[in-house]
Amino acid sequence: MKKMARMLGGVLPAMVLASAAAVTTASADDYASYRAYFEPLPALPPIPANNSLTPEKIELGKMLFFEPRISGSGVISCATCHNPALGWSDRIPRATGHDGQVGERNTPTVLNSGFLGSQFWDGREPDLEGQALGPIEADIEMAMDLDSALTVLSGFDVYKEKFAAAYPGQRNPITAENVAFALASFQRTLNTPNSPFDRFLQGDDNAMTEAQKRGMVAFVSNGCIACHRGVNLSDSRFHRFELPGSTDQGRFLVTGDEGDMFAFRTPTLRNVAVTYPYFNNGAVDSLEEATQLMARQMLGRELNRRTVNDIVAFLNALTGDMPDVSFPALP
Amino acid sequence: MKKMARMLGGVLPAMVLASAAAVTTASADDYASYRAYFEPLPALPPIPANNSLTPEKIELGKMLFFEPRISGSGVISCATCHNPALGWSDRIPRATGHDGQVGERNTPTVLNSGFLGSQFWDGREPDLEGQALGPIEADIEMAMDLDSALTVLSGFDVYKEKFAAAYPGQRNPITAENVAFALASFQRTLNTPNSPFDRFLQGDDNAMTEAQKRGMVAFVSNGCIACHRGVNLSDSRFHRFELPGSTDQGRFLVTGDEGDMFAFRTPTLRNVAVTYPYFNNGAVDSLEEATQLMARQMLGRELNRRTVNDIVAFLNALTGDMPDVSFPALP
Repeated sequence: MKKMARMLGGVLPAMVLASAAAVTTASADDYASYRAYFEPLPALPPIPANNSLTPEKIELGKMLFFEPRISGSGVISCATCHNPALGWSDRIPRATGHDGQVGERNTPTVLNSGFLGSQFWDGREPDLEGQALGPIEADIEMAMDLDSALTVLSGFDVYKEKFAAAYPGQRNPITAENVAFALASFQRTLNTPNSPFDRFLQGDDNAMTEAQKRGMVAFVSNGCIACHRGVNLSDSRFHRFELPGSTDQGRFLVTGDEGDMFAFRTPTLRNVAVTYPYFNNGAVDSLEEATQLMARQMLGRELNRRTVNDIVAFLNALTGDMPDVSFPALP
Repeated sequence: MKKMARMLGGVLPAMVLASAAAVTTASADDYASYRAYFEPLPALPPIPANNSLTPEKIELGKMLFFEPRISGSGVISCATCHNPALGWSDRIPRATGHDGQVGERNTPTVLNSGFLGSQFWDGREPDLEGQALGPIEADIEMAMDLDSALTVLSGFDVYKEKFAAAYPGQRNPITAENVAFALASFQRTLNTPNSPFDRFLQGDDNAMTEAQKRGMVAFVSNGCIACHRGVNLSDSRFHRFELPGSTDQGRFLVTGDEGDMFAFRTPTLRNVAVTYPYFNNGAVDSLEEATQLMARQMLGRELNRRTVNDIVAFLNALTGDMPDVSFPALP
């Protein structure tokens, strides 16, 4: 517990301590009491005051998300790595972009990313608006400078119309900021309600299996919830985690603060079963191994096989309904 | 007309000759008489006797079509170049694949490709089954040898189940042939009915505009229909066409026959408005320029501006309903 307490800056939630001696079998009432530790997924994440969520921005953002011609090669879009067929991620260890270059980090899913308090593994951007443009410009991702991307978009009457509709009253609405705002708006709609876990939280006692419920109890009582908490099962904070084989300095590269060395933002656990592989470099394929590794490193605990299996069952209950997104018709 | 006659091996359809003096303005009845030159798109293309079209194969084929992990990089699938958001093509001049390598030829759309009598620009495969595997293996496309691809697929229980369901009774159904048969089955469902042209052919006199109808007449009377004929507006034959700047020897590279030098299979004109750019190397962006170039080279004619505009209007009437394909959930 000492290590976990340190992770949280000395503030260990009373609820975690109280549940540390949780029973391994429980009645429906016992399980129901665990609802207090969690929050079901709202329909939408918080909407920033300066980027109201409108159908026009969502539609434009969707087009831009699938638009490969704002990449240097002409064939890579946001959806290449954030692939709707693959949990809006890519299911390979590390992101692969322009000319087949392989990056340092695993592609995070965009699902429910509007519920995160910061973006990227190192949290270098505070929100989806800040996140949106970097991958377009990054040499190893889409590899197109923003001016060129705006020139491409300006060449299509359809984009002229869609930008004008999304940003009425602006003389030249095809701007980098508006690209970012539209992409962020679209991404705020990519949420996954109705997971067994959410249905359980909303009152359906039968939505999760016994194993999943036992896993929920173990998740709380072993302290996983210390960091994986809140709506998105992430505290959106940074924690030191040294993955065997990884030399990635994580948050330190953003802040230069020694205390941030090897620290990464807690990833969401929602849809974790369909967003493998895991950790900052995608080195781990299985939820069993990921769970054991986390317990050892973050909690200083060796979990027995049954507990691991139960927690993995619980993690499988966190897969919600995938967004119903059809292909846009690009100009 | 001499050049056109040579293209057709001396067999110039009587209907084309008969219409060579077609009027430039016409009554509804006159236009209706042109229905005889064309065929509306059937619901499905011919199904080969050895590859019955089943829901199980279509579903599996769809998964494989969107599956990037059967590529060397892990991020390129059939849908990368045959992008549903871009007319099931890529809208760049030449196909761009593994590690950003650029091929020699423009990506043909897969829409209605089951109606073609041969596949690829050079017709080197007779059917979709023959076409399916080459791009997976090609070094500049998906760049994965078939054995590796089969190993990848065999690693997923979901694929084991889907192959078993699609090919019942086979001891090991995860074979290269079955991959090809499933992909071909899925592609046979990617058809685009209900274009204004098809609705006109089926009796709706108002489905096409006056300009489109005039273009239809000009398309017949100028002889475009000599090669762009039949259900898919392609004769599936090979015709010499020397695109300025292209050194691609086309069909000759397949047959070694001097008569095939610079010859390419007639592409479909269905959905031509949404499958730019044009020709074997994608060097031409606009339908106006493409139409003039074809008239000069293939028909030995200089079309006036109005005729070009009318033909382009007609070509725009060939865009049908895009297939209603949602993202598969890959394992």
